[in-house]
Amino acid sequence: MTTAIRKRLPRNDALQKVTGDAQYADDIYLPGMLYGKLLRSPHAHARILDIDTERALALPGVRAVVCGIDTSGIKYGTVPDEQGLAIDKVRFIGDEVAAVAAVDEETAEEALALIDVAYEILPSVHDPLLAMQEGAPVIHEASAHIYDAARNISRRTHLAYGNVEAGFAQADYVFEHTFETQMVNHATIEPHSAVAQYDPGGKITLYSSCQTPFLIRSDLAATLQMPLTRVRVVKPRVGGGFGGKREMMASDFSAAVLAMKTGRPVKVTYTREEALATTRQRHPTRISLRTGVTRGGRVVAKECHMIMENGAYNGRGPDILGSCPNYLTVLYRTPNIHFDGYLVYTNNPPGSAFRGFGNPQIRFADDSQMDIIAAELGIDPVELRHLNVREAGDVTPNKAIITSCGLRECVEEVDRATDFRNRWGKLPFGQGVGLACGHHTCGFKSLLPHDSSAAVVKLNDDGTANVLTGASDVGQGSDTALGMIAAEELGIPFHRIEMTTADTEVTPMDLGSYASRVTFIAGHAVRLAAADAKSQLLEAAADLLRTPPQDLVSENGVICSLEHPERSALVEEAIQHHLAHGPGSPILGRGAYNAPTDRLNRETGEGNTSPAYSFGAQVAEVKVDPETGRVRVIRMTSAIDCGVPLNPTAIEGQVEGSVAGGMGQALLESFSQHEGLILNPSLLEYRVPLAGEMPDMDTIIVETEEKEGPFGAKGVGEFVQIPTAAAIANAVYDAIGVRIHDLPITPDKILAALSKKGVGT
Amino acid sequence: MTTAIRKRLPRNDALQKVTGDAQYADDIYLPGMLYGKLLRSPHAHARILDIDTERALALPGVRAVVCGIDTSGIKYGTVPDEQGLAIDKVRFIGDEVAAVAAVDEETAEEALALIDVAYEILPSVHDPLLAMQEGAPVIHEASAHIYDAARNISRRTHLAYGNVEAGFAQADYVFEHTFETQMVNHATIEPHSAVAQYDPGGKITLYSSCQTPFLIRSDLAATLQMPLTRVRVVKPRVGGGFGGKREMMASDFSAAVLAMKTGRPVKVTYTREEALATTRQRHPTRISLRTGVTRGGRVVAKECHMIMENGAYNGRGPDILGSCPNYLTVLYRTPNIHFDGYLVYTNNPPGSAFRGFGNPQIRFADDSQMDIIAAELGIDPVELRHLNVREAGDVTPNKAIITSCGLRECVEEVDRATDFRNRWGKLPFGQGVGLACGHHTCGFKSLLPHDSSAAVVKLNDDGTANVLTGASDVGQGSDTALGMIAAEELGIPFHRIEMTTADTEVTPMDLGSYASRVTFIAGHAVRLAAADAKSQLLEAAADLLRTPPQDLVSENGVICSLEHPERSALVEEAIQHHLAHGPGSPILGRGAYNAPTDRLNRETGEGNTSPAYSFGAQVAEVKVDPETGRVRVIRMTSAIDCGVPLNPTAIEGQVEGSVAGGMGQALLESFSQHEGLILNPSLLEYRVPLAGEMPDMDTIIVETEEKEGPFGAKGVGEFVQIPTAAAIANAVYDAIGVRIHDLPITPDKILAALSKKGVGT
Repeated sequence: MTTAIRKRLPRNDALQKVTGDAQYADDIYLPGMLYGKLLRSPHAHARILDIDTERALALPGVRAVVCGIDTSGIKYGTVPDEQGLAIDKVRFIGDEVAAVAAVDEETAEEALALIDVAYEILPSVHDPLLAMQEGAPVIHEASAHIYDAARNISRRTHLAYGNVEAGFAQADYVFEHTFETQMVNHATIEPHSAVAQYDPGGKITLYSSCQTPFLIRSDLAATLQMPLTRVRVVKPRVGGGFGGKREMMASDFSAAVLAMKTGRPVKVTYTREEALATTRQRHPTRISLRTGVTRGGRVVAKECHMIMENGAYNGRGPDILGSCPNYLTVLYRTPNIHFDGYLVYTNNPPGSAFRGFGNPQIRFADDSQMDIIAAELGIDPVELRHLNVREAGDVTPNKAIITSCGLRECVEEVDRATDFRNRWGKLPFGQGVGLACGHHTCGFKSLLPHDSSAAVVKLNDDGTANVLTGASDVGQGSDTALGMIAAEELGIPFHRIEMTTADTEVTPMDLGSYASRVTFIAGHAVRLAAADAKSQLLEAAADLLRTPPQDLVSENGVICSLEHPERSALVEEAIQHHLAHGPGSPILGRGAYNAPTDRLNRETGEGNTSPAYSFGAQVAEVKVDPETGRVRVIRMTSAIDCGVPLNPTAIEGQVEGSVAGGMGQALLESFSQHEGLILNPSLLEYRVPLAGEMPDMDTIIVETEEKEGPFGAKGVGEFVQIPTAAAIANAVYDAIGVRIHDLPITPDKILAALSKKGVGT
Repeated sequence: MTTAIRKRLPRNDALQKVTGDAQYADDIYLPGMLYGKLLRSPHAHARILDIDTERALALPGVRAVVCGIDTSGIKYGTVPDEQGLAIDKVRFIGDEVAAVAAVDEETAEEALALIDVAYEILPSVHDPLLAMQEGAPVIHEASAHIYDAARNISRRTHLAYGNVEAGFAQADYVFEHTFETQMVNHATIEPHSAVAQYDPGGKITLYSSCQTPFLIRSDLAATLQMPLTRVRVVKPRVGGGFGGKREMMASDFSAAVLAMKTGRPVKVTYTREEALATTRQRHPTRISLRTGVTRGGRVVAKECHMIMENGAYNGRGPDILGSCPNYLTVLYRTPNIHFDGYLVYTNNPPGSAFRGFGNPQIRFADDSQMDIIAAELGIDPVELRHLNVREAGDVTPNKAIITSCGLRECVEEVDRATDFRNRWGKLPFGQGVGLACGHHTCGFKSLLPHDSSAAVVKLNDDGTANVLTGASDVGQGSDTALGMIAAEELGIPFHRIEMTTADTEVTPMDLGSYASRVTFIAGHAVRLAAADAKSQLLEAAADLLRTPPQDLVSENGVICSLEHPERSALVEEAIQHHLAHGPGSPILGRGAYNAPTDRLNRETGEGNTSPAYSFGAQVAEVKVDPETGRVRVIRMTSAIDCGVPLNPTAIEGQVEGSVAGGMGQALLESFSQHEGLILNPSLLEYRVPLAGEMPDMDTIIVETEEKEGPFGAKGVGEFVQIPTAAAIANAVYDAIGVRIHDLPITPDKILAALSKKGVGT
């Protein structure tokens, strides 16, 4: 019996969200607040010659206009190449040039039109292959941070593990294909929004719709040249992140700068158009994959050449490219591997983190190819996976230790649940099933020197507890998961836990919500803090019950002796006893966790960038209408290994969201662009899946126990989205015999392919 | 050399206060906020027969009317006898009967007049001596909490230590006098104010101008029948407390109840009249003191009979009465002592805590009598003190251990600084000098089971630190003092410390600002939390500098090896090293402190209610105009032992405020009352000292080192106010030969006494 975990508990913010009382950044109104708007570049590439703000400043109601030259100009980011507001150049359509604060949004908007910017228009480049050619327009000037500025290559990742030549020599067959994935947007329901307030004592408070308040604090403090204690970033409720809110945005920076300039609070909320077209995107990629397999179906070598289009700025691009080799080494046993990847600047909107962090792109290529291999070898896709799946205890060719892995069971489960092997290749034309697998990290040792989190637990006289953690609930429900971990460790019912999270001033540090790290990394810290509090609690109970603390357990609000079960006390009785008699009275627990530091060699990149990995398999069932080319996903069955399932309901929610995201990328989402201009920046034309389009979804939980995770849990935020596009593509192939190599799988592509095959019209 | 302590640092909130940017409760405006007003009883004693709110509710703009019967009716307080809103009876003029929330203050005020209350007027009693007589109106019905309800005696404290009879038998002289002290009000510059916000998820947040957010949380949670985690009390900047804001007020309770009822934020700010006449007062007392001394001037026995008028409700009265015996045992060596005190209900405004917590009343009596004894025995007042002063290492007759004591040096210092012995009794008629002493606690083990505090220290990457403590800065500067303690312990400059305080949800528990406990108790917790963080910091530095941590010191932002001074690192370098390599990465320190629990026997009341005591001596120099009877204080010289002086500027500020408070009670402050109706509830007529009336003030710091205190410090909040009235009364006697036994020493009393003596008109 557990106190909290493994229970289907509703979220602790459910009521506020259902009633509309949950407060998001844009719901914040501060006395005297101004409204900020950003002037954006209409050019994809241009030099800023002059900015004249006089007319804008003269407009009644305008309180301040700020340009890049009014700011420190310090570049920020993990590999810094971006300024809060552009100074010398603009590099994409939408690049931020100036910010206005006015008494209302309309006046601020009007003022934007009165700012006169003199540009020298520069030639621009919008295709990474062209951008890499000699003589292409140079987007960023050469610096130590850039691999090859003249060819617009921000970063190259070139790695080999094992003996690739020898590997291919063992292969009976070699397959080579090229896949392409498109730019997609997070399209969070809540656009980016920030409210900044400046205290004339020299302190800025920023309420930001973000995933990473502590990282934004760092960037904001650096660019404002202030100590970390004088910058407070608070995350209100957030309506979705998916990677799109894990960096400081121009909204954050401008709100802060305008608040400092005016002495009044300033709110900057992006329009839907701004959120879609000017923030961050999933990197478009071109992936050439060469795979050697034995006649029996074992993968023996793999070579991957990857072009990742960076867009105008790095965002987390260098980290994402650096992660990609791991996506090929962890999931399937691949003893010899060669990876050559290029992150290439263009004058398109910047790419950055997006659920999966490069993994969905790699997985679409690799699991599409696995399906091709299966067909060619006459081995069914389930069997092919079984021959190659990663197992617990494995060490990858780049020396990452796989501590727990339920991948084989996941493949078995989806096979059984969907009767896959009996249906694959045997359904009527137009109907198909497709299998793909996925994995992802639980935290991520990236260019940041650590992957850590800390927490505080305070016990109150009445047996309730306050938990403080920097972790950021962005809608995924981490406040609930972390509260459950605290409740379980303390042995008190979940409803007695109050969470205070994601406020850089009052909560302990946590890097944020990304890399499926929150349950694992922050959960570990919360558990340690709760354990620290519990040890004090049990000391007090031991004194009260006259029994040694190691003989006591705390469960469901009661502390009880194992030896003498008749000796028991309520948690609040023990707390009150400690208050009256403890030398350090109020019970306060602290915990801090860093992903193991001894398992990664930063010089060679070998070892674990993540302390553990979650795994899963997915079967898509589709119907393809050969008349219209329209693909309808009928059912998605996901089997997942996220360690011990802390809250099955929350896990199912994650899976269903992932299916929607993956399905959007597979079938629907795409920007029409012309020379860097996004032509469809609205949710009417940029098509995310609607509720009515969603398939039936089944989630099968395959339990493993991850020793390093809190209560055996692993992350669940991202990895279910990773196989989705490949599963759908494979199902489409099963349905109509057509293989689409570039996402999204649109009706026109299907019709063209069918027509090429001589099917249909 | 120190990093922070012993320095004259300005307050960390000085800029905001000087610019007017500091935010007090009444400065808080929340969207949709309503304004609350309280309907108060016009009768000193009456039964509530019926309340009709219909007409009030019908007034446009009124959003809610709440009466006692709409609430839980649960009584609160350390000895509970008071309800948030009265239900059955009202017990003083101003007792709260109903609360209204409306769209503005004027509408709320108007609505009060439309509430129809049917009262049955009861006989009332306004003099404690009459209230104690058989047949007096009974104010509170009998209960286990009340010593003798029929005689309106809430509590009796009857204690004897040593052998009082034998003591008096040793005495060569016995002196017996009766003294009286008046009711005075805290008259804080900021009146009481509270803003409540209700989250429909079931949580109340109260911004309250208070000294004790955690105690108010307890009372609010109990009366609202909610768990402690669902009640958050936040203290904004506070403009003075002095004991008047250390309990839940009707403003707090009503704001919360109205916010819950309306679903909208509600602000209740008291008018000056309400603050002065309906909150809390210093208890009026009548103290009969019988003291036996030897011919040589040694005090051998003391008998004290005290009537303390409670007013209508207990407030902290029971605790205050219970403390009074200690005020006679700690300051002067008094081997045999008998105390008989009565806390008596009347239908006057309730008394409660006020700077000194009963000690100023006792001290006025005892040090006035010491002056009488000195004169009668022909021993000068300095010598008489030297014969009887408490010394470090002493144990009081009720077994309290005096750990540090600089009282003798304080008496010497004020003597020297004022040339007292050469001037006392020798100045021209109308000029006089008067000496008195004082002491007070550093925290207080009262009816609460503990006296504790906890703190958290977070270190940031850039070598700055956030300190979280529940301690409440109410204007005395404790945020600065506690920040200095953290800075000193960590070895980083004070300006790198950011304080987050007094928010029950995010800060660790602390009981609040009272009993001069903050520097001592909360300071101890902060020091422990900083030491916990420092030990992690030094571990990291040890790893970085390849030297054992015990060889390292952290000072002024630099960690340095004692053995190899060439090995050093900046604090931020050590933090960053820990982040990259520490298993529990972000450095987080926790500390909790409880005043020693082994030094108080709660059964007998023997032992230490406070872990240490601060001491002081004061000389008042006055001019008395025999024509007008007006007393002018020319100079006040205070010598104080508050242990190691952390910030001399802050200490001087405390002393000067205390002198103002003491002088107000001694000479100016008094309410005119008629049957419980206060006739002068305004600062025009209730006369606190004006800046221009203040004397020259000298502060002499006598340093001791208190082993139990943080960096050797002791409390300084209250004890300088304690001797002031006696010092002035003694100076008046020295000036004109007239002894005033009842406060305040007003011109009419002086003229009457002079005329009785045959001096003047």
